[in-house]
Amino acid sequence: MGKVFAEITMSVDGFAAGPRISPQHPLGEDGNQLHEWLFKGTKDNPIDQQNAAAFFSSTGAFVIGRRTFDLGINEWGEDGAFGKPCFVLTHRQQEMLVRGSTTFTFVTDGIESAVRQARLAAGEQDVCVMGGANTIQQAINAGLVAELRLHIAPVLLGAGTRLFDQLKGAPITLESTQVSNSSFAVHLRYRMQMTDSFQP
Amino acid sequence: MGKVFAEITMSVDGFAAGPRISPQHPLGEDGNQLHEWLFKGTKDNPIDQQNAAAFFSSTGAFVIGRRTFDLGINEWGEDGAFGKPCFVLTHRQQEMLVRGSTTFTFVTDGIESAVRQARLAAGEQDVCVMGGANTIQQAINAGLVAELRLHIAPVLLGAGTRLFDQLKGAPITLESTQVSNSSFAVHLRYRMQMTDSFQP
Repeated sequence: MGKVFAEITMSVDGFAAGPRISPQHPLGEDGNQLHEWLFKGTKDNPIDQQNAAAFFSSTGAFVIGRRTFDLGINEWGEDGAFGKPCFVLTHRQQEMLVRGSTTFTFVTDGIESAVRQARLAAGEQDVCVMGGANTIQQAINAGLVAELRLHIAPVLLGAGTRLFDQLKGAPITLESTQVSNSSFAVHLRYRMQMTDSFQP
Repeated sequence: MGKVFAEITMSVDGFAAGPRISPQHPLGEDGNQLHEWLFKGTKDNPIDQQNAAAFFSSTGAFVIGRRTFDLGINEWGEDGAFGKPCFVLTHRQQEMLVRGSTTFTFVTDGIESAVRQARLAAGEQDVCVMGGANTIQQAINAGLVAELRLHIAPVLLGAGTRLFDQLKGAPITLESTQVSNSSFAVHLRYRMQMTDSFQP
């Protein structure tokens, strides 16, 4: 079966979003600079293109935090953008939402359950825990993440949502497995020790 | 004349030192993993060797925080390790300390003064603001830093001294100028907009 990876972009000073997140500014004020590698870099930079493609290419299911879902759903269009089963970590029970080939299943019994359901849905493919920051922290703390895919955008945001803020079990030694870069981001992959013993 | 660069190693989660810094643990507990690129990598990895050499090769003077000085001075040996003029940012007036070819001048009137004195001492060479984190933050906030040289060690420390914690004037857009990596660190250089108008 596939692996579980967490993937997100952060600023050089470690923020996954700028301050004052709102529907108008889903990455916070000034946060759009984080995703320039996605919106500008992928136009003509093969490194950014490869990194963007890898987000989907081997991914069979996604795990998303509730806030990310709420901020994104109106932007993701009629097909829901992902084209795969998505599991939304939330406290509010809700019926599955279908948008074209994308399904959003709301999971109220915690990150282990969300990742477990995503792994079952993904089959042989990988599961992407795509944030926000709090969801990724929960997944790391639960020992569920085998690979960290970080994109570091060339900006100091100074304030906002810290990607790594509530880590347990630190220090956690990582293994650098891949580095690539464009002028819009440094793309890093690290292998992590998974402690979860999930068996399908 | 040369430029002012700030250079330091941080963890993937942005800590320049682990928790509980002490003379026995100058980088905090678990902090030694930060400098493996210096102590292990430079033994046989040319990328780590190049990055370590660059710390000294064009540098004519150093700016050091008081705490870093206090923690380091007994480790730096009879020649003071730097072989160049060092300016120590402190609140306590003290006479210049000479260790072989290294001089430590104690500067009590702020980061601008420390960097200005260092630039004069460095002549055509560069000035390295080498930390700790607070000293680098002060230099960035004063618009004194033209280049940021970051080494990212493959570890999540979870706690300690955050490298970027008190930045003003953010967001600060950076320009990525160099990326290299070994298994012990990702080495990044960013150009920053200097706002200081120092003239010798």
